[in-house]
Amino acid sequence: MARIVQKFGGTSVADLDRIRAVATRVKAEVDAGHEVAVVVSAMAGSTNQLVEWATTVGKIHDAREYDTIVATGEQVTVGLLAIALQNLGVEARSWLGWQIPIHTDDVHGAARIDSIDATKISARVAQGQVAVVAGFQGIAPDGRISTLGRGGSDTSAVALAAALNADRCDIYTDVDGVYTTDPRIAPKAQKLSRITFEEMLEMASSGAKVLQTRSVAMAMRHNVNLQVLSSFTNAAGTFVVSEDSVVEQETISGIAYSPDEAKITIAGLSDQPGVAATVFGALANAHVNVDMIVQSASTQTKTTDISFSLGRADLDKAVETINGIKAELGFDSVDAAANIAKISVVGTAMRTQPGVAKTMFETLAAKGVNLHVISTSEIKISVLIDAEYTELAVRSLHTAYGLDDVS
Amino acid sequence: MARIVQKFGGTSVADLDRIRAVATRVKAEVDAGHEVAVVVSAMAGSTNQLVEWATTVGKIHDAREYDTIVATGEQVTVGLLAIALQNLGVEARSWLGWQIPIHTDDVHGAARIDSIDATKISARVAQGQVAVVAGFQGIAPDGRISTLGRGGSDTSAVALAAALNADRCDIYTDVDGVYTTDPRIAPKAQKLSRITFEEMLEMASSGAKVLQTRSVAMAMRHNVNLQVLSSFTNAAGTFVVSEDSVVEQETISGIAYSPDEAKITIAGLSDQPGVAATVFGALANAHVNVDMIVQSASTQTKTTDISFSLGRADLDKAVETINGIKAELGFDSVDAAANIAKISVVGTAMRTQPGVAKTMFETLAAKGVNLHVISTSEIKISVLIDAEYTELAVRSLHTAYGLDDVS
Repeated sequence: MARIVQKFGGTSVADLDRIRAVATRVKAEVDAGHEVAVVVSAMAGSTNQLVEWATTVGKIHDAREYDTIVATGEQVTVGLLAIALQNLGVEARSWLGWQIPIHTDDVHGAARIDSIDATKISARVAQGQVAVVAGFQGIAPDGRISTLGRGGSDTSAVALAAALNADRCDIYTDVDGVYTTDPRIAPKAQKLSRITFEEMLEMASSGAKVLQTRSVAMAMRHNVNLQVLSSFTNAAGTFVVSEDSVVEQETISGIAYSPDEAKITIAGLSDQPGVAATVFGALANAHVNVDMIVQSASTQTKTTDISFSLGRADLDKAVETINGIKAELGFDSVDAAANIAKISVVGTAMRTQPGVAKTMFETLAAKGVNLHVISTSEIKISVLIDAEYTELAVRSLHTAYGLDDVS
Repeated sequence: MARIVQKFGGTSVADLDRIRAVATRVKAEVDAGHEVAVVVSAMAGSTNQLVEWATTVGKIHDAREYDTIVATGEQVTVGLLAIALQNLGVEARSWLGWQIPIHTDDVHGAARIDSIDATKISARVAQGQVAVVAGFQGIAPDGRISTLGRGGSDTSAVALAAALNADRCDIYTDVDGVYTTDPRIAPKAQKLSRITFEEMLEMASSGAKVLQTRSVAMAMRHNVNLQVLSSFTNAAGTFVVSEDSVVEQETISGIAYSPDEAKITIAGLSDQPGVAATVFGALANAHVNVDMIVQSASTQTKTTDISFSLGRADLDKAVETINGIKAELGFDSVDAAANIAKISVVGTAMRTQPGVAKTMFETLAAKGVNLHVISTSEIKISVLIDAEYTELAVRSLHTAYGLDDVS
């Protein structure tokens, strides 16, 4: 007997038929003798409708009201799934964030889970009652409903698995696992049976949308065994595990990409302490998320250039922000490139195997792909390229690293 | 300065434009210096959608899950109205049933309000913050969400007005007050400026759907000043008040009708104690609501006939129930009439003025309307007639009692 947390996303509970199908999957685990808690998202589309209402009825001055509105999506699904389970003869009850309670901080609309008091829910689960838990929501210190931000249901599931000391956290989604790269642009992509937390984190933050980055980081911190699998097939999924449990390791696990990037280069900054702090402090204040940053100083001119990547949607705001501090900073020019993609090669084994970067640069050079920025971490190499080369670069690298499915 | 509870029904908050219009009405009371709490229903249609999902996904074995689902309708509206108010510069916050809290009993799906702890909400209202309260919902002793049953938002508003010691409870709806009868079938119907609680109760239970019976009974018990008015016009509404505050009283206040009735007559029952208890006990167990009951015993045959009215939807179930206890009861026949209407003449002044019943019977006889059952209370006379005579009967009586608008 194991204790399992199952999480079903919005497409898995999109209508009543699919909710009944989810109930059947849950029942299978119960019939196998397991203790089960299920975390569900809102029915696909319903969160969008709620957000549209909330943001159209007026400007949002008070995110607590936004949270009150959008949290209803999951509240509907937990009730429906509980009814569907009861109709299969499975004992079940729904739990809202405030009922467990799942305590969060007070950053409404993008709250973080502080703690989960699992006493009551754990006792019920131990008695064999399936707990159907509303994902994405909690209760803030002021007693108001809070939400965790988009995709927060993955985080809810992992946090609940940790609080319940679950043996496994199964994330059901509309893909059947983690692939070596996106099968839509590289048909030879293969499903990975295992990936480490670290690799999954790099894959997620590099554009692979299978799991939310926060949930992977939390699973790594609490050592929760994650599995990603499809709610529409019975195929085996991908386990996300700690590094020690991976015995045999390929050189790299996958190629991630993010096609909607932009790049800004500030040229001719004076090369003195505090310049980077001024630039990125101003951008943070403007709520611009910056990703890769490279700086190269010229010893001759005593000036420096800073390049960084960011989401394309933030480009105009970022340029405006930098021009706004031109007097303070002093620089020659701001150069903005809108159509940039980030391509990342990810794998823990690259630590011990030389030549991974060389393969990447040679492969891209052979296809005539120019590299704007290079950035490396212990288990990842990322480059910025012109977005039009995205698919070509991903497919070429996938082949070059021997990831193609030749079966 | 007064303290006011305003209640807006589903059609008044049917879309974002109407929610903004409601915000404008609320602001007008705030600008006039009043302390305001607003109770809202779900957006028109949304409760139906939620109920359909809940009842279609499976059979409801656990009304707590039903309540969890349907209570989301009001949760959405309070958030939206709070945002709309904040956009008009009005300080406002939403309150869910469990946040106030509004304590109910544990009859999920049709709960009764046990008590409202108004401490927190009253303090906020006194500070000038508009309280936007989800109608129709509360929290049961087990910490689960409960709902008050259809139309429960009126009851929420009246209970809140009592708990807040409000000076007035304004019920905004899609009609602009209480009429002497239904203007759709009697165009000469007049709007009443005042009506007593007792009359309103009789009108409501006799088919005038302006206010939910429970809410009127509660207002009477706690002496809450009710006003019924339109959310779409600025016309004066109808005050529902205690009898002592009505100075000048017409003979009767109005003609109510309920066209969807049925009648059952059980003939040849043995005339002995316990027969009625057996019949209506069995019907109550089958959840059949019975309205008017008359019994007439024959001293010659030692048998008795019992006739009663009920909602047409329950007719088949009721006949089946009675046939099911035929062996136990012993009777000659069950006669069911499906197309019956109830017509009621209501007015407190009929106590002191003779001839009210005579006028009713003469008027209906002159039009050839046959009376199946007659039942009288202190302030009401009701008759059952064939449903096809409904409009004719209502219009004739409206004229006969001098209620026609001759302006």
